[in-house]
Amino acid sequence: MARIITLLSDFGTQDVYVGVIKGVIAQIAPQVTIVDLTHQIPPQNVALASFQLAIAQAHFPAGTVHLAVVDPGVGGSRRGIAFQTAQNYFVGPDNGLFTGILATASSARSVAVELTNSKYWYNPQPSPTFHGRDIFAAVAAHLANGVHLRDFGPAIPPTRLLRLPLRHHQPTETGFAGAIQAIDRFGNLITTLPSDCVSGQAWTIQAAGKVIPGVCTYSDRPYGAMIGLIGSHGWLEIAVNGGNAQVTLGLGLGDPVQVIILVEETEQTDSGGANASSTG
Amino acid sequence: MARIITLLSDFGTQDVYVGVIKGVIAQIAPQVTIVDLTHQIPPQNVALASFQLAIAQAHFPAGTVHLAVVDPGVGGSRRGIAFQTAQNYFVGPDNGLFTGILATASSARSVAVELTNSKYWYNPQPSPTFHGRDIFAAVAAHLANGVHLRDFGPAIPPTRLLRLPLRHHQPTETGFAGAIQAIDRFGNLITTLPSDCVSGQAWTIQAAGKVIPGVCTYSDRPYGAMIGLIGSHGWLEIAVNGGNAQVTLGLGLGDPVQVIILVEETEQTDSGGANASSTG
Amino acid sequence: MARIITLLSDFGTQDVYVGVIKGVIAQIAPQVTIVDLTHQIPPQNVALASFQLAIAQAHFPAGTVHLAVVDPGVGGSRRGIAFQTAQNYFVGPDNGLFTGILATASSARSVAVELTNSKYWYNPQPSPTFHGRDIFAAVAAHLANGVHLRDFGPAIPPTRLLRLPLRHHQPTETGFAGAIQAIDRFGNLITTLPSDCVSGQAWTIQAAGKVIPGVCTYSDRPYGAMIGLIGSHGWLEIAVNGGNAQVTLGLGLGDPVQVIILVEETEQTDSGGANASSTG
Repeated sequence: MARIITLLSDFGTQDVYVGVIKGVIAQIAPQVTIVDLTHQIPPQNVALASFQLAIAQAHFPAGTVHLAVVDPGVGGSRRGIAFQTAQNYFVGPDNGLFTGILATASSARSVAVELTNSKYWYNPQPSPTFHGRDIFAAVAAHLANGVHLRDFGPAIPPTRLLRLPLRHHQPTETGFAGAIQAIDRFGNLITTLPSDCVSGQAWTIQAAGKVIPGVCTYSDRPYGAMIGLIGSHGWLEIAVNGGNAQVTLGLGLGDPVQVIILVEETEQTDSGGANASSTG
Repeated sequence: MARIITLLSDFGTQDVYVGVIKGVIAQIAPQVTIVDLTHQIPPQNVALASFQLAIAQAHFPAGTVHLAVVDPGVGGSRRGIAFQTAQNYFVGPDNGLFTGILATASSARSVAVELTNSKYWYNPQPSPTFHGRDIFAAVAAHLANGVHLRDFGPAIPPTRLLRLPLRHHQPTETGFAGAIQAIDRFGNLITTLPSDCVSGQAWTIQAAGKVIPGVCTYSDRPYGAMIGLIGSHGWLEIAVNGGNAQVTLGLGLGDPVQVIILVEETEQTDSGGANASSTG
Repeated sequence: MARIITLLSDFGTQDVYVGVIKGVIAQIAPQVTIVDLTHQIPPQNVALASFQLAIAQAHFPAGTVHLAVVDPGVGGSRRGIAFQTAQNYFVGPDNGLFTGILATASSARSVAVELTNSKYWYNPQPSPTFHGRDIFAAVAAHLANGVHLRDFGPAIPPTRLLRLPLRHHQPTETGFAGAIQAIDRFGNLITTLPSDCVSGQAWTIQAAGKVIPGVCTYSDRPYGAMIGLIGSHGWLEIAVNGGNAQVTLGLGLGDPVQVIILVEETEQTDSGGANASSTG
């Protein structure tokens, strides 16, 4: 059976860390297809890794093994874990990296284990700085080969896996308050405001003292104009048509944003305000 | 049948956009091999994407599906298309991205369609900002599975696909005038002057007020010297042996260059001037 | 037989050079799995490429073909070579790129050839600037297909392959003197001092006028503290817990470091000094 193992890390691509992990996997599970999600997570940014992993894993076939290594506590007391959701497997350090997954997966159905059985490690004397190679890669490969989760070590109640505090959105008098949780290559500012904040209603977004209209897509406003839109992963985003919103607004991770629902417009139509955006 | 799908985009590798596209393809066509051409096209630079795609596709096996997404007009009125040349398939937005391909492929033999049949989309309600995931990746995967081009939507005469104005070269009294159309990682300046401008003759290239001798390869001049040469893809290039011509000359995309044919030299030999370069 | 070809180069990922190489391989050996080690070697840095290749190749299955192209002398007089060690195959320019491999492989058992047989090239008239595409990729693919090494050209005694001077470590009165030979994405400074300099003893490392304690892993000292440790590839490294040692110390490739063995501590214990690090 040809399974997929995805890789997500902060290893970058200038060194051979990722190549080494692929070599270890190839030794144990040569038939597996490996897919890189990203290795450009900013060093040790577990929260951003959790966000990116949760987005990406939703689009892979059932049975995929997701190996994620952003691991500032490697060699210390944090546990190595593997767990299974209704659809997929996850392997990595128990440091909050799977917060986004655990928030969406039915925790009650998850089965988690601590990776203590060195029989399934690449190196029974693992380097204190590279468990990605010596433990996690090997475990992911054995999982893809069909080894049962329970064989890797003792069970952990899924409720006891470490979760980071999620950046929530808060209702305000006129909408919701949130923050910027990710910034993509295009400088699009991805907020913590989910799309259902605004479904079917006209809206604007406020950030850096600007009021930015919510529209459907980039070309709904002139080249160079700031826009709010529902991003492809389901979060409200701020963008600049043909430009870079991060540069234009000078905002960074964690900076506050607010969405304002334009309720006065909805009286005039059946299916939404005159300016309402749709995802159709 | 194990086909190849290549990917070219401006998505970068810091986000999981590319990983998500690979997940979608794996769901539909798990047996396909995916090859990244590049995801580092400068954001929204359709012209450079067209150049890179045309270069790369020439080296892939017949039947390869080339999926290219540099798509500033996503969600607007531009069409999504797929077309077939004598050798390969192409999928992406109809925004000029395939100009380089269409200039070399026999247009008369191409078959093109507009991607309107949502049966072959990943998401029948596509995100207005990520057709790469919701339409193009799925179409590429179905093409690799053997679905016929005509099943994806109505035919478009290939002559009506959007083409960017090609950066031509113009004859001058002493040679040809052109421009810089690409700059690679090494700072090599790739011009719009094709190698047949100079075949069999000695030449120099003029740029940024410098006169640079045309030679065969880097080591034909001392370390640090500027050189003109016939690049590996068939265009005249400006390089610095062991250095970076972009930095040395301070030139950028679109800046003018001229090649001067040294005709007085050719009288003295049978097969080219004393300084003529060869590709042997 | 599904073999692996790994790729290591200084081509970067902004251009399509790597994609083109993969296309050439796919034409000749479609069943092969290609693994990128890195393409971010600084342009023309043969020594760093040699270091990275030697580290990575140790973790791949027997029979893997390692294709490495950092080739500032392309088109000049340097030879193209392929050779076989007890476990693996290597293909690339004979310019010192394989120094690290040849230092570890049993040279007496290696079989090396010069790549002169154009029957196995992609282009019998190779571009003078891209032997990676026109010679090396094709040879690697044919090797993966089972073509015998001797078919690619005449044998070369392995002792006559070009080796760079290795950056050795020198004993001092109190330990060993070495230098920084690589810097990774995290800013960790990887020295030329092998781990057996310090095995079983307490140690400190001196660099940039600082005295830095040798510990086991990042979290053995407070967040932000400088540490010495045994890196995952077996060399002493300097790191900052949660930070970037390159930035903190302002050091670069080739800068000197010294390890000091704390011999006075070892009298007090059986198995090492009170501060001794272990890799367990």
